Amino acid sequence: MKTSTGRFFEDFRLGEVIRHATPRTVTAADAALYSALYGTRFAVQSSDVLAAQIGYERSPLDDLLVFHVVFGKTVPDISLNAVANLGYAEGRFLRSVYPGETLSAVSEVIGLKENSNGKTGVVYVRTRGLRSDGAEVLEYVRWVMVKKRDEAASVADQHVPQLADSVEPSHLGIGCPPIDVEVYDFGLAGSPWRWGDFRIGERIDHVDGMTVEEAEHQLATRLYQNTARVHFDQHAATGSRFGRRLIYGGHVISLARALSFNGLGNAFHIAAINGGRHVAPLFAGDTVYCWSEVIDTAELEGRSDMGALRLRTIATKNLPCAGFPGHNGTEYDPAVVLDLDYWALLPR
Amino acid sequence: MKTSTGRFFEDFRLGEVIRHATPRTVTAADAALYSALYGTRFAVQSSDVLAAQIGYERSPLDDLLVFHVVFGKTVPDISLNAVANLGYAEGRFLRSVYPGETLSAVSEVIGLKENSNGKTGVVYVRTRGLRSDGAEVLEYVRWVMVKKRDEAASVADQHVPQLADSVEPSHLGIGCPPIDVEVYDFGLAGSPWRWGDFRIGERIDHVDGMTVEEAEHQLATRLYQNTARVHFDQHAATGSRFGRRLIYGGHVISLARALSFNGLGNAFHIAAINGGRHVAPLFAGDTVYCWSEVIDTAELEGRSDMGALRLRTIATKNLPCAGFPGHNGTEYDPAVVLDLDYWALLPR
Amino acid sequence: MKTSTGRFFEDFRLGEVIRHATPRTVTAADAALYSALYGTRFAVQSSDVLAAQIGYERSPLDDLLVFHVVFGKTVPDISLNAVANLGYAEGRFLRSVYPGETLSAVSEVIGLKENSNGKTGVVYVRTRGLRSDGAEVLEYVRWVMVKKRDEAASVADQHVPQLADSVEPSHLGIGCPPIDVEVYDFGLAGSPWRWGDFRIGERIDHVDGMTVEEAEHQLATRLYQNTARVHFDQHAATGSRFGRRLIYGGHVISLARALSFNGLGNAFHIAAINGGRHVAPLFAGDTVYCWSEVIDTAELEGRSDMGALRLRTIATKNLPCAGFPGHNGTEYDPAVVLDLDYWALLPR
Repeated sequence: MKTSTGRFFEDFRLGEVIRHATPRTVTAADAALYSALYGTRFAVQSSDVLAAQIGYERSPLDDLLVFHVVFGKTVPDISLNAVANLGYAEGRFLRSVYPGETLSAVSEVIGLKENSNGKTGVVYVRTRGLRSDGAEVLEYVRWVMVKKRDEAASVADQHVPQLADSVEPSHLGIGCPPIDVEVYDFGLAGSPWRWGDFRIGERIDHVDGMTVEEAEHQLATRLYQNTARVHFDQHAATGSRFGRRLIYGGHVISLARALSFNGLGNAFHIAAINGGRHVAPLFAGDTVYCWSEVIDTAELEGRSDMGALRLRTIATKNLPCAGFPGHNGTEYDPAVVLDLDYWALLPR
Repeated sequence: MKTSTGRFFEDFRLGEVIRHATPRTVTAADAALYSALYGTRFAVQSSDVLAAQIGYERSPLDDLLVFHVVFGKTVPDISLNAVANLGYAEGRFLRSVYPGETLSAVSEVIGLKENSNGKTGVVYVRTRGLRSDGAEVLEYVRWVMVKKRDEAASVADQHVPQLADSVEPSHLGIGCPPIDVEVYDFGLAGSPWRWGDFRIGERIDHVDGMTVEEAEHQLATRLYQNTARVHFDQHAATGSRFGRRLIYGGHVISLARALSFNGLGNAFHIAAINGGRHVAPLFAGDTVYCWSEVIDTAELEGRSDMGALRLRTIATKNLPCAGFPGHNGTEYDPAVVLDLDYWALLPR
Repeated sequence: MKTSTGRFFEDFRLGEVIRHATPRTVTAADAALYSALYGTRFAVQSSDVLAAQIGYERSPLDDLLVFHVVFGKTVPDISLNAVANLGYAEGRFLRSVYPGETLSAVSEVIGLKENSNGKTGVVYVRTRGLRSDGAEVLEYVRWVMVKKRDEAASVADQHVPQLADSVEPSHLGIGCPPIDVEVYDFGLAGSPWRWGDFRIGERIDHVDGMTVEEAEHQLATRLYQNTARVHFDQHAATGSRFGRRLIYGGHVISLARALSFNGLGNAFHIAAINGGRHVAPLFAGDTVYCWSEVIDTAELEGRSDMGALRLRTIATKNLPCAGFPGHNGTEYDPAVVLDLDYWALLPR
């Protein structure tokens, strides 16, 4: 058969390295579409002039756009038969990506664990995003629950990898060039708040809300060449559990990140993703809100230009976040859709 | 608090100059998105070859795209707490904007007038759009009704500025390079009608209609980095007066302008906006139609290449314009959504 | 009257050559939008690096994007008053189109046949897409049923042209540069199947489905500057036969082509369109599926790098294609929306 229907759990082998298809040259057009899809306003990613003045070649592509393009390539090989995207860890943004560069992706299977029901298993992959000259721009681990084709099939080597709770501060910053903070224009950036103005435990309600339409998440997810059918096929969805197309989880992350500009306007670079959970599905017509908590701060070794904030950003659907809805120790507020833990860099 | 909730009426000071955030490098991608959003067909903005042949460096960005990008920057500072966008005046397009240029915006508060109810006031600003080298590309005055945070707050200096009814013909044309009309190809432009073919009082029904979807106006308005929540937050809108997201007024202007190609195909440059009123809100699902009346004509000082038409373009929702619905002296036809008065240039 | 309402049947003259308006410079932004609209994954059109390695200057624009841009220009002159788009023939893609090139279109009226009801007639045009230096990039014949303005009007010269059932293999391949197949990376391309792996009679279910939203087809069709009002005007559509906006037939072709990547991943170039029928209309909310049959194979004269497959691709709405729904000899399965016959090239 010439058509691919994707791998099932028993098709994966521990240690296997999968080179994903469809390299993609990213351009200023991807950046413009990203703006149109999320309304992002970080000045470094918006103005070539400002970016060049502070130390970039020109405006780099948004870190999450790079993430989505790399992630999208992995879908046909890793998660076409996924039941759920369970989590992310050890995500690191290693290099600025500029318009005109060509990206591809490679994944290593680092863990396999069959579920006791015999119907599914969890696949752990470490994915690396590569520039055409081989330079690594991104890496992250994700784990997904994947269906078995045949319940009787056995999986030889099982292994659950040890993953770091968070990326060590000593590993942060490589993806950010030296920044000339004297030249960085806090007025044009839209926020006066520097790294040193934030305190551990501080909570920020990002106030604004954004309603998502079917056309929007489909345009985004196709732009990333992500082929997971749950996002696109209403005919099939009609008979499914939710009866609706599911919005790509990365779309929610990008919406929350764009909304977080209001309060975190100088956090222009994501250095690392420590972890992330898509707590509940988002559907077209839902309105996304979010809030963040500063859960740690870190200096960057040998750098006085930028500092890191470890942020936990919680996104909700149809619930403004003035009350900071989250996890009460037992369970999530039913409005929560995303719980993301990441390191962002801000000028000092 | 690190989050901005925008200025209220009593936060403005007469004469204050506000430098807006988020400079933006505009590219050919913005032009392509603009085409996809409105279907504009003016040849000069569509073909680099044709534009270069007649005197431009290459295709300039659509004048209204430049307007929206500049306007968008002002929203977080000027109109986040606006009740209504009341009007525009003294708008002038001063320079062609090309892909790769970076735009920013500065506004001066030129008028403040508290309303007698003590709950709102009118803020007048003169906004200038600037290229990164400081060259001015656009300026216009707009006035908006803004809420007071505190009804008891007093506003020291009040002033209502004198604004011109229309931009003087002697001020037109600076935004248009010398055009080689011998080379301008009326066939490729799609219309045989030159400046001299239009007469004062002539009315043109632009015939076609365009239905607007939520995804479309949201993509557009985010592309312009316009953050007014009324355009994006259905959850909040559900409990509001209209129960719906409001479509950015500039989206209606661009739709009307694109539709006006049918009849005004050679009016490729907007030289000035004399005035404009968003007479009624537009919602997703509505179909926009429009018609125009030539209300004046003018030669351009020292130029024999181009002439100016002063046009009044009326846009309606869900009502074709063969009957030229407008203002009957007492009130607008209930279908009217936009009443725009502008100067456009055409080859002579 | 300055507004165009399009030509009616009696306005066409046999042999007439119509130069269409609005040349358009296509850019990488059109390619990105095309990706976002259809999710296409052919590696040659996605990666400048891969394209340059095998023999292109860089990633060419998708052949169908070029087709849509050329087609769009013809609409205001040919099919504004069309009742139905009846067919295509003798379509040939003659040259790679790269970002930055400017396209225009010219059509010759090659056939006219009044229908016996006296209310409509069929217009046959041969359209050529041209680069600004005059090089031809595309040509095709289409025929449309057009309304008469005046039932009493007579049409002097009537003629039904003889059209080829299919494009001869000797005419294929001119639009594809010599490909270095040694360098072509089947892994990055996402499919191991070469030209020689396909057999006449082989059927491929492309598996995936894609639901279309109003905003999506409107964005696409405006991007192509196609002005047919049936795609855009819901107010007018409400009183019409279908009560809905009709989706541009080319949108369906592009969806089917993008879905066909799953099974035909190396068929990166469309060499010719032998014929095509829009069997039934598609509406927003419908989900498109498709399958293909290999109906012929051909070597290319003097070339050992690439071979041609003649494919018949059938697209359906709301019916997955595992059962290969098509034409039973008497009639089409009611789910079929498109029956397309084309030649694609694959590496040998």
